[in-house]
Amino acid sequence: MKLKIDINCDLGESYGEFTVGNDAGIMPYITSANVACGFHAGDPLTMARTINLAKKHKVAVGAHPGYPDIMGFGRREMQLTREETMSYTIYQVSALSGFARTVNVKLQHVKPHGALYNMATRDESLSKAIVEAVRALDESLIVFAPPNSILAKTATRKGLRIACEFFADRAYNSDGSLVSRKQPNAVIQDPRKVVERTVRVAKDGTVIAVDGEAASLGEVHTICVHGDTPAAVRLAQALKRGLTRKGIEVVPVDNFL
Amino acid sequence: MKLKIDINCDLGESYGEFTVGNDAGIMPYITSANVACGFHAGDPLTMARTINLAKKHKVAVGAHPGYPDIMGFGRREMQLTREETMSYTIYQVSALSGFARTVNVKLQHVKPHGALYNMATRDESLSKAIVEAVRALDESLIVFAPPNSILAKTATRKGLRIACEFFADRAYNSDGSLVSRKQPNAVIQDPRKVVERTVRVAKDGTVIAVDGEAASLGEVHTICVHGDTPAAVRLAQALKRGLTRKGIEVVPVDNFL
Amino acid sequence: MKLKIDINCDLGESYGEFTVGNDAGIMPYITSANVACGFHAGDPLTMARTINLAKKHKVAVGAHPGYPDIMGFGRREMQLTREETMSYTIYQVSALSGFARTVNVKLQHVKPHGALYNMATRDESLSKAIVEAVRALDESLIVFAPPNSILAKTATRKGLRIACEFFADRAYNSDGSLVSRKQPNAVIQDPRKVVERTVRVAKDGTVIAVDGEAASLGEVHTICVHGDTPAAVRLAQALKRGLTRKGIEVVPVDNFL
Amino acid sequence: MKLKIDINCDLGESYGEFTVGNDAGIMPYITSANVACGFHAGDPLTMARTINLAKKHKVAVGAHPGYPDIMGFGRREMQLTREETMSYTIYQVSALSGFARTVNVKLQHVKPHGALYNMATRDESLSKAIVEAVRALDESLIVFAPPNSILAKTATRKGLRIACEFFADRAYNSDGSLVSRKQPNAVIQDPRKVVERTVRVAKDGTVIAVDGEAASLGEVHTICVHGDTPAAVRLAQALKRGLTRKGIEVVPVDNFL
Repeated sequence: MKLKIDINCDLGESYGEFTVGNDAGIMPYITSANVACGFHAGDPLTMARTINLAKKHKVAVGAHPGYPDIMGFGRREMQLTREETMSYTIYQVSALSGFARTVNVKLQHVKPHGALYNMATRDESLSKAIVEAVRALDESLIVFAPPNSILAKTATRKGLRIACEFFADRAYNSDGSLVSRKQPNAVIQDPRKVVERTVRVAKDGTVIAVDGEAASLGEVHTICVHGDTPAAVRLAQALKRGLTRKGIEVVPVDNFL
Repeated sequence: MKLKIDINCDLGESYGEFTVGNDAGIMPYITSANVACGFHAGDPLTMARTINLAKKHKVAVGAHPGYPDIMGFGRREMQLTREETMSYTIYQVSALSGFARTVNVKLQHVKPHGALYNMATRDESLSKAIVEAVRALDESLIVFAPPNSILAKTATRKGLRIACEFFADRAYNSDGSLVSRKQPNAVIQDPRKVVERTVRVAKDGTVIAVDGEAASLGEVHTICVHGDTPAAVRLAQALKRGLTRKGIEVVPVDNFL
Repeated sequence: MKLKIDINCDLGESYGEFTVGNDAGIMPYITSANVACGFHAGDPLTMARTINLAKKHKVAVGAHPGYPDIMGFGRREMQLTREETMSYTIYQVSALSGFARTVNVKLQHVKPHGALYNMATRDESLSKAIVEAVRALDESLIVFAPPNSILAKTATRKGLRIACEFFADRAYNSDGSLVSRKQPNAVIQDPRKVVERTVRVAKDGTVIAVDGEAASLGEVHTICVHGDTPAAVRLAQALKRGLTRKGIEVVPVDNFL
Repeated sequence: MKLKIDINCDLGESYGEFTVGNDAGIMPYITSANVACGFHAGDPLTMARTINLAKKHKVAVGAHPGYPDIMGFGRREMQLTREETMSYTIYQVSALSGFARTVNVKLQHVKPHGALYNMATRDESLSKAIVEAVRALDESLIVFAPPNSILAKTATRKGLRIACEFFADRAYNSDGSLVSRKQPNAVIQDPRKVVERTVRVAKDGTVIAVDGEAASLGEVHTICVHGDTPAAVRLAQALKRGLTRKGIEVVPVDNFL
């Protein structure tokens, strides 16, 4: 059977006149779009346009809910109650699913954004709140999460499908965690290396860690790329091409989970 | 055949710690709730709680979208483009419909809020943007509007059902328009008078205008009441009782449109 | 020399149409107003009105800056950088001082609000950011803080005057900390007891803790009261009268620091 | 006596992670910076940084207050009351003046932003609200306005200094009004032409209108340029050089008003 993998990217992160990223540039090279839902970025008009663009490129669409913090782009930790987290998640995912409905598209997945994502990878009660909100809306939604994270485990335990995510241009520690961005070697710059690592992880779920050892991440279903610079777009293009050449089919994660 | 009428009220207008109205007090006496969707009031947690409260009381639920203006409570006119109005409407209605879905409730209607409502009653292109947004989401949604307003006409022409609204405690001019709140006699204070006027309008669609003449409003389907003061709650109670005693059935508008 | 003490209250916490508290009711019984500055509550119009009301009652005015979180009323912890905290503090204090300037009033103090206050009482780098922002604006501003808190110590070390705060209706532990609101006995209900405790703390800086022991809080300069309920207003009135009868002069803290 | 003129530019329009413009690029070529104050753009951190950058380049600083509408960048008309407009203006100007104070800079001017500016050029009661807010804060502040506009006249009548503004790259009608941006010839693309027109207006206050006639704008004190593209930065550079070569001194408007 042919290997399959998904490429995802955060999109629709403009806000009114504030323009972020190059959504049109990256769309041809990805298969799943994580669309901002208005709390950290992504005003309604941007959401409508992003959904249309994704549909045009046959890219699957997911919600990318974040903390209510436009000024901080959802990257700052906030302490919310369980009820607040649940209702903020339902609000954002539902809002996006409405735009999807208007063009006969069904949401594929939910990927929390920024601080919400980072905190959920390690905080069980936060993960539960997110997962329960998603389940209350639609049990067929897939949750994007790092392999072996608390978020991944919580979603699985609650009966949701998960897509484990590999960060294409990030270095990993031998325990499978990401090398902190504060470290000088946190980001892999060489495109060939990025492609090579991604092909490897797609094939056997391992990555060469910073200490030179092969680290097992377990099964990886989706590759996260960035789309905000010309170099990022070229990298996504190289990734899609490289994976395809190696016989790995690049398709939305819903096709093979 | 028995006469039927709906009683609606704006609800869920708290915002975080800012508490507005007495939703629990008014719910027993109304049949349709217009629930704020986060742009002028109604944070997600309030939306979740309001939907639950409405379900408990078997009150039909509608979206009450407004301008993005928490500081002005959606009461200040804003000049938006058609695309902005459409996307803001889709966003808000969808967000609310998600909360409804989590408790197996289907939205019944959409009633624009504040300045958006007032402007839409007289502005055709604004009305079109709202109506098209509603249609794009769900053609079975009912639009609440003043009788004979541009909004009512636009919704009808576009194939949506409308519910024509009577303001129970407001004085009317002989042309069927509301007496401006700047006039001293704009609000009817006497509860018996309010009930009497409402029974009359429910029976034959007419109201005694400020000049003493009977003005025809055409068919009226829903009575708008306020719920923010103890007096308002008592008035709603009196209305429901008064209508029922006169043999008029008080039920959600979806039951008879 | 006559004993002097200040009574402070959080005011101006309405936001547009969202009305909070009873500012006009409490003003006659306090000597310092902590005025919200727009980030957690207090839109500009409310700020203007609150400043005017304070001036009319000869109440000293201070800024009450909070986290940028209208939906959470500034009560939710947020992780900001030092630069963000500094600039948010400068922004809010300056905005309020502008309103004060228009009526020839000079700001007396700064009291952080909600989560910002609570975190600053125990977090040194956060305290430093706040204190440096205040100093950069005006070295004559007084910082309100709990006795012996990190915030109090940081402000003192940086050369600012501090006013140590006693919470009139809150129970204290024997180490001088507040009994958590989660405990049933956290709030003192009996007005006579509240007055008695306040007189005691004003005289010798001690309070009878929940374990029955007298706990020393050190010097206390200002008594914090609430103003949002009729009972709260009566309590403030009782406090002012009780202190005065015991020969303690109730005046703005700037008069005696 | 040597002719003098000012060059102004809207700056500090980033918002958190949302980056707008090229402030560092344009600063060397302007003499007055209109700094956004947080309502339509310009979070506090951006304000602090912009003030520092302006000081470093000896650029005079003014407040650029706008409508409270981050999503619409202050470009959408809003209907506010006089009291709301006044308090929003005081709030924003004061907030910015606080940042200026921390680096020993005094605000030079106020230029309303976007829809607030456009509406004020033709609406007398709006102009009055803005002008009274500015006066209440500091009577030495200069108001930027189009020549002969309602805003210019109102500010003058109320005793404030005004700086009349010429838009360097915009075409004018023979009555001195701007050619609408909806017209194809609204923007002058050729840099040499822009410089030539600006020198002319600086010398005798006239501009060749779209109908080929010389239109008199009256005295012009400041030239408005944009700074958001590399071409815009080059144009500003060309302007400053061109004016200087023609013997016109380019200095902040406070130097010669």
